[in-house]
Amino acid sequence: MNIEERTQLIEAARGDRPLDLVIRNVNLVNVFTCEIYPADIGIFGEHIAVVGAAGQYDLQAQREIDGSGKWATPGFVDTHVHIESTMVTPANYAAAVLPFGTTASVIDPHEIGNVLGMDGMRFMLEGSEGLPLRVYMSISSCVPAVPDKESAGADFGPAEVAEMLTWPRTIAIAEVMDYMGVVNGSPKMVGIIQAGVDAGATIQGHSPMLRGRDVNAYIAAGIQNDHELRRGDEGLEKLRLGLLPLLKVSSMGNHVPNILPELKKATFLDIALCTDDIEPADLLKNGHMDRVIREMIAHDIDPAVAIRWATYNGARHYGLRDQGAIAPGYLADVVLLSSLQEVRASEVFVGGVQVVDEGKLVVDIIAPPTTMKIENSVHLQPLSIEDFQIAAPVQAGDCPVNVITLELSRLTRLEQATVSMRDGLVDLSAMDAEERDDLCYLSVVPRHGQTHPPTMALLRGLGLRHGAMASSIAHDSHNIIVAGHNPADMLLAVQELQKSGGGLILTADGAVVDQVELPLAGLMSLKTVPDLAIDTERFTQSAVAMGITARTPALAISGLALTVIPQVRISDFGAILDVEMQEFLPLFV
Amino acid sequence: MNIEERTQLIEAARGDRPLDLVIRNVNLVNVFTCEIYPADIGIFGEHIAVVGAAGQYDLQAQREIDGSGKWATPGFVDTHVHIESTMVTPANYAAAVLPFGTTASVIDPHEIGNVLGMDGMRFMLEGSEGLPLRVYMSISSCVPAVPDKESAGADFGPAEVAEMLTWPRTIAIAEVMDYMGVVNGSPKMVGIIQAGVDAGATIQGHSPMLRGRDVNAYIAAGIQNDHELRRGDEGLEKLRLGLLPLLKVSSMGNHVPNILPELKKATFLDIALCTDDIEPADLLKNGHMDRVIREMIAHDIDPAVAIRWATYNGARHYGLRDQGAIAPGYLADVVLLSSLQEVRASEVFVGGVQVVDEGKLVVDIIAPPTTMKIENSVHLQPLSIEDFQIAAPVQAGDCPVNVITLELSRLTRLEQATVSMRDGLVDLSAMDAEERDDLCYLSVVPRHGQTHPPTMALLRGLGLRHGAMASSIAHDSHNIIVAGHNPADMLLAVQELQKSGGGLILTADGAVVDQVELPLAGLMSLKTVPDLAIDTERFTQSAVAMGITARTPALAISGLALTVIPQVRISDFGAILDVEMQEFLPLFV
Repeated sequence: MNIEERTQLIEAARGDRPLDLVIRNVNLVNVFTCEIYPADIGIFGEHIAVVGAAGQYDLQAQREIDGSGKWATPGFVDTHVHIESTMVTPANYAAAVLPFGTTASVIDPHEIGNVLGMDGMRFMLEGSEGLPLRVYMSISSCVPAVPDKESAGADFGPAEVAEMLTWPRTIAIAEVMDYMGVVNGSPKMVGIIQAGVDAGATIQGHSPMLRGRDVNAYIAAGIQNDHELRRGDEGLEKLRLGLLPLLKVSSMGNHVPNILPELKKATFLDIALCTDDIEPADLLKNGHMDRVIREMIAHDIDPAVAIRWATYNGARHYGLRDQGAIAPGYLADVVLLSSLQEVRASEVFVGGVQVVDEGKLVVDIIAPPTTMKIENSVHLQPLSIEDFQIAAPVQAGDCPVNVITLELSRLTRLEQATVSMRDGLVDLSAMDAEERDDLCYLSVVPRHGQTHPPTMALLRGLGLRHGAMASSIAHDSHNIIVAGHNPADMLLAVQELQKSGGGLILTADGAVVDQVELPLAGLMSLKTVPDLAIDTERFTQSAVAMGITARTPALAISGLALTVIPQVRISDFGAILDVEMQEFLPLFV
Repeated sequence: MNIEERTQLIEAARGDRPLDLVIRNVNLVNVFTCEIYPADIGIFGEHIAVVGAAGQYDLQAQREIDGSGKWATPGFVDTHVHIESTMVTPANYAAAVLPFGTTASVIDPHEIGNVLGMDGMRFMLEGSEGLPLRVYMSISSCVPAVPDKESAGADFGPAEVAEMLTWPRTIAIAEVMDYMGVVNGSPKMVGIIQAGVDAGATIQGHSPMLRGRDVNAYIAAGIQNDHELRRGDEGLEKLRLGLLPLLKVSSMGNHVPNILPELKKATFLDIALCTDDIEPADLLKNGHMDRVIREMIAHDIDPAVAIRWATYNGARHYGLRDQGAIAPGYLADVVLLSSLQEVRASEVFVGGVQVVDEGKLVVDIIAPPTTMKIENSVHLQPLSIEDFQIAAPVQAGDCPVNVITLELSRLTRLEQATVSMRDGLVDLSAMDAEERDDLCYLSVVPRHGQTHPPTMALLRGLGLRHGAMASSIAHDSHNIIVAGHNPADMLLAVQELQKSGGGLILTADGAVVDQVELPLAGLMSLKTVPDLAIDTERFTQSAVAMGITARTPALAISGLALTVIPQVRISDFGAILDVEMQEFLPLFV
């Protein structure tokens, strides 16, 4: 807002200049007082000019909306989200979330950042310029997630982060996942945090189950929030230490029932909300920030309080001074709900412009131009069957091995098993079903042009009965991850991903069973969310048909290389990483 | 905190570096959750490193304090205060308020700014450098308070304000008192606000009884808080519109009983506190921010909530990210209370250094060097008896006049009276006591080197029975204000103030009755608060002895030139200003 706009807004507020839009007689959810009462809202240009009790002022405007029977809330502010998890571009993402009332998102582009570095980060900035969804950047702090334990397509140090913090719409350091690096005072992590503090940025945390003096150290380092709470006592400990909980319901799961009842023990509770990761079909079916608000209401949080958490508190936390409330001078980002309890968005306004009517998007969202050319980002060295074989310590016989066991919770644990060897190789095909007990091969294939060979481990718990599954979504370094019962199908899956520029794939018996193409960085489609959801739903059915038991079958193996989630993971540097110790374990016991 | 300090703090927090100070087994007032529970606090250098439940960690340090039976709160953050009202330098102010637990103040130096312009503003910045009290600057927005209706020693426009916003420790635009200027879109006021918004500064408000669409316009302009609430319904209206109430108890009065019960009707209430103006003797006797907290508790606000309002909320509102809480990474500004209900500070720590022990200051506070030379700032043109006479429309007889009536509330109202005329002059001495009914002369004498003559009005309600009272504290332009029963004593009072460089004075029968010298800008003494309080208390007794009935007798006339407080005031440009209309009224009806 410049001086002329501000002067005009003042005139409109006091009544000496016509309003552009009046929403009349609506139940205002006042996020300052958490009261709900009938009100009239007067909008001038992009901003709210005047708010009064219904009928208090005789507000007139060219356009008037009867808000009777509806509730007006500020647009929802998502305090931490990866657009890449929805596998679409920012423009298509905006089109998908606006109908659910989300009008502002603090994005962490660390998936594309891991693949394409600062070019990828800039793509997300440019690709979100001028959208009706207000997109704010947090600069990814852990690219790669854990230095020295894996390699990605980029490596962000304090200098790169400081440079990106000067970009427009950039307000935060994204989730500092290398929490042990912070606790241990790693110069890289401390330097990145310092760059954020110096820039006045908010510092996002990520420290599942970090407790005690370690979490004190983490917070002392400058971390300000955490969206990775797992337990109630953990949440209350962090809240008391000043770490703002960002409660979430994501496609990956919902820990709110474990956390919120304990947080409610606080005499005073004021937190914020986020979505983190939402898959396309889940978004269409279950919503976005509205779902998170519903979850709060389901836990007996007063709806007005839950809406405060979803709007004003996030905006304040990030220093967005003119967002998150319906009051004079605030941006006119307003959601009309047809049901308060169900948090059903009916109309959505962004900067005074109606973008959603009766739950449907009513504006064309055009992707802005970006400087980055979209090219195949799957850069593999030549591969052969041998790359997916495991050399055994002896020619034949049985041998005890360490295996990675995947749990339904997406956590993993270290287990032991006995495997057969034949011709100097581990040979699962030599074992019968009972012996194998759901065991398969697991490999990470460097795809950022690195020259080291794939790593090979053994995986239990996937449920896959035959063939192979591969994905170029392999958090967070996004090398290719592939699981399978035989080297040939694994090789085929990886090679097909190379051809398409990445995506999700299932192979069996030397043929492709199903595939979702994600040509943008191997992470995202150029399709809309509804179109992509058709692909992912079909792929999910194919994965289930092949036996995969995970809660999100299409992404069942995508988290197995995420080197910051306990207990053991695979990386491109080593087959079995003990996450807590940050040490590689041998395959053969 | 630089990278090295941050790294050391992390080490101390996790337990790999010795702490400097441990406060053990204290009742922690947790301002995040508003819980109170026994805790241990570990401090390293200037910062808090670790906080745990009592005995949770075996915290060890060179110095340990047994906090048993005490409460630990963050240092109190005063969200709006004029140090000049305490009539001492920043260093002496710090020495006086620290024992009451105030460790941070957002000061508005608009008194000295009105007299000495940017030199005076800079004096307050330099004079507060390195004090144990953390002093933050808000840049005075209304110097003079109302342009064109008075003249001061300076005139700050958007350019001057923008320049001062670049100074260190500068975080806000000070109280925007010219609220009608804002509502009317005055380019000067809108420009000053814009300069603040552009600098990321918080914009302080001041709009007593501004309501309806006018207050919508005021808020739409960018105003963020208000410490001048008068009534409960006004407070709730402003709270609902997003204007943060800064509740205060100042030497000038206490509107909290009128406001807080109504604010408590909000489902959710989160506000902040300030002192605004505290006189020396009042400070010593009744305290500072601790008094404001006591007032909240007296209105049944939970003590932990009241302390949150007095600490965390103010720090957040001004973006002071590492202040206002006892948690890892926060500055170790800690108050130990010997009584929670009475909010009695016993020990005070600032940046980990103990500054108060058993309620007494235990550090030497040395005034930092300042570039401004302290010179006599009372610049008068030659004056004579005639300057304090009122030419009458006719030679003799009675005549109806407008008079300014001072109420106990410090508000004024316009009244009419009939005065006698003799020899072509208004002559109060020609009237008997009943006729005069407490009527006296009132004059503003330009003292910033202006060349226009004094203005003359008639005043009722002061209580002064004879002689004259003058003051170089005459908000906000701080010309000389003088009230009296005869021109000779008025002239003497003004001339004596000129000699001393300003202050407060009483004269009678051609002699000085009592005087408080305030040589620094005619506003402040170089004495300590206890020494100055002896002077002001003695002067107060003298004023009462001469009949003055105001709640703060020493400053009874100091507010009569404050052109932003209803209903009528005097200025150096005209005798009777209608504040609401911003028009001058004639003396003779």
